[in-house]
Formats: sequence, C-alpha cells, structure tokens
Amino acid sequence: MHKRIDHIVVRVKNLEQSMRDYETKLGMKASKGPEELRHLGMRRAVFPIGDAGSFIELAEPLGDDGAIARSLAKQGEGLHLVALAVSDLKAAVAEMKANGARLIEAGSMVFVHPSEGHGVLYQLVERK
Amino acid sequence: MHKRIDHIVVRVKNLEQSMRDYETKLGMKASKGPEELRHLGMRRAVFPIGDAGSFIELAEPLGDDGAIARSLAKQGEGLHLVALAVSDLKAAVAEMKANGARLIEAGSMVFVHPSEGHGVLYQLVERK
Repeated sequence: MHKRIDHIVVRVKNLEQSMRDYETKLGMKASKGPEELRHLGMRRAVFPIGDAGSFIELAEPLGDDGAIARSLAKQGEGLHLVALAVSDLKAAVAEMKANGARLIEAGSMVFVHPSEGHGVLYQLVERK
Repeated sequence: MHKRIDHIVVRVKNLEQSMRDYETKLGMKASKGPEELRHLGMRRAVFPIGDAGSFIELAEPLGDDGAIARSLAKQGEGLHLVALAVSDLKAAVAEMKANGARLIEAGSMVFVHPSEGHGVLYQLVERK
C-alpha cells in the first residue's frame, strides 16, 4: 500500500535559524522557502532528500492557533509527522477504515491518529 | 550527500501489540521480527516501505539502560530517530564535522546531535 517515506515535518521555533542549521551543519539545500502557507498556519522550507521526491520540511507556526503552534507549545521542537506516499488515497483510506484505524480527515488531508502509530502521527499523501 | 530517508525508528512499550497495530490497522507487513538486538538493548520488528529499501522499525527496550529504554521512560512512545542514507559514511562524517555539526559516534553508528536537527535525532547510515 505504501510506496515510500515521502517526507517528514519538523516543528521549529525560528525558520531562518533552523534553515541555516540544516544548510550549513547538516549539508542540505532548500528547494523552497521560506514560504507562507496561511491556510495551514505555518511558514515552511523544503529540503529534498535524494532523487525520488522525498523531503524534509521545516515548519514554523504563523500565529498561535494552528496544529504546528499547538504542538510546538506542548512538545517543543521536533518531529511533527511522517508522511507516507500511497498511489490511491481514497483506496488507502477505505482500506484503513475497514481495518478499524482511526483517521483524522482535515479537508483533503488524511492523518492516522497517533495512538495507532504508537506516538507517531502519520499522514497519507497521494503520489502517482 | 543524502540519498534517501532510509528508515525511522519508533519506540514502543510492547512490540507484539504495536506489531499487531501496524499490521492490521496501518496495513503494513513485517519482514523481520520480533528479534532481539542485545548489543543495542532492544527488540525490534522491521516493516519495509516501498521497494527502495526504506523501512519503519519498531523498537522495544530490553532492560532499563539502553537508549531506547531511557527515551521511552522520558518521552513515551513515539519517534526515536530518522536515519538518512549516505553513500560514503566516512566522507559524510568528515564533511559534517568540517561544517561544525555535533556528531555522536557510538561504535560504527553515527548520529547527529538532536540540537542540530532542531529536536530530531538523525542517524547517518551507509548504503551503497
């Protein structure tokens, strides 16, 4: 069902500072960012990993009431989610619901409740 | 420098229970485990993701004094680390040290201090 580990999202307090650390110390190169995603309440930068489309996303909250802001206040900087690529999101959702998994559907985004992932929030993303 | 997101390690309290959840609810299939890795103080199971060699590893502590046991006691279940594949580990280590990154070298294993990753513990693994 899952094609690859598509990306991870890392919550950060200061996008510019963390971009500098990922670029200089970790040796990565941003392909996007800083850019605002207002509908998600965040600013982000994207660091491609390899050639298959995987990436690391750094996300800083915009304001106090998005998912990133709430998690940052509660848990500090660190991993926010792991996104797994599926070729058919609708089919994956139907299969997981039939399996009894608790999903969180937010608009077109689908997450697996972190209790099912034993502390890891998984997102399912469709990639052809 | 980085070829792919190679694997993630998820700390769990009970390996058999979490394997059941990953297999039934998340729809994954273990390729290894349960197996003991005594030198790492853990029992684990491995779930391949896609065809490129990536996987999710579930890790339950063996005893109270390994890295998994300490993190589980402090932070509970959840993401333990994200492993990034590099083609030449020695070269990657030399480059990151030259960049001023704090690395944690434990035998043949190399980790990037989580302060550099802004809360994420990265491991570097060599994959040809």
